[in-house]
Amino acid sequence: MNPAVGGAEPLVDDPTLEADVFSRNCGSRAILQNVTSRWGLLALVALLDGELRFNALRRRVDGVSERMLSVSLQSLERDGYVHREMLQAIPPRVEYSLTDRGRQVAERLADLIDLVEGQVDEVDEARAEYDRR
Amino acid sequence: MNPAVGGAEPLVDDPTLEADVFSRNCGSRAILQNVTSRWGLLALVALLDGELRFNALRRRVDGVSERMLSVSLQSLERDGYVHREMLQAIPPRVEYSLTDRGRQVAERLADLIDLVEGQVDEVDEARAEYDRR
Repeated sequence: MNPAVGGAEPLVDDPTLEADVFSRNCGSRAILQNVTSRWGLLALVALLDGELRFNALRRRVDGVSERMLSVSLQSLERDGYVHREMLQAIPPRVEYSLTDRGRQVAERLADLIDLVEGQVDEVDEARAEYDRR
Repeated sequence: MNPAVGGAEPLVDDPTLEADVFSRNCGSRAILQNVTSRWGLLALVALLDGELRFNALRRRVDGVSERMLSVSLQSLERDGYVHREMLQAIPPRVEYSLTDRGRQVAERLADLIDLVEGQVDEVDEARAEYDRR
């Protein structure tokens, strides 16, 4: 973006360069941030069980505000991870589901969640020990 | 934390309850946020290749400030994902490495990164299509 530093920086638009999330200018970093955002991550994994309407998704992702869920879903929809379907009904309904690409990512995230959920006790012990030092 | 709402909320300290990241009071959610934070995630994966001194880690995690890297590493150390070793040397050196638990998490995160790095072109296309609507 800034020609003054362009020489030493990787060029995101150069198709011969492989994506590298460790490079600050690589587009993969922003994508990773969307799928691992506080609420985006939980929304993706919640949708692994099947399509959900907005309010059902909001109940599942306990604690999320309407606005934050809406913003997170919009980013995921724009990136093609989530499909938003407006159903013809009275009143109109909106349903969210995973795209194929979204499912791939959500499965990796679910693996991570399973692991972390199993580590809660160990992490609690580690924290107590750290705080005693 | 708030006794007024305690009755309907899951009790984090009840060992008979399984961890559930979808529950706002479950300790697993805060742990997940530490390991998927913008800089914590990259630091964990950077350490998969071996121990690193602070400055080397900072160079690897391109774009992170000294302060943000320091804060992220401290959270990861407190949770027992990263080990911090002060080496007797002149000048003194600090080296960071993954614990066994940290390695498990970092491997899951590396899987996710590999996947997302391979999706950059598709996501770019999805965004362009979304923005044309």
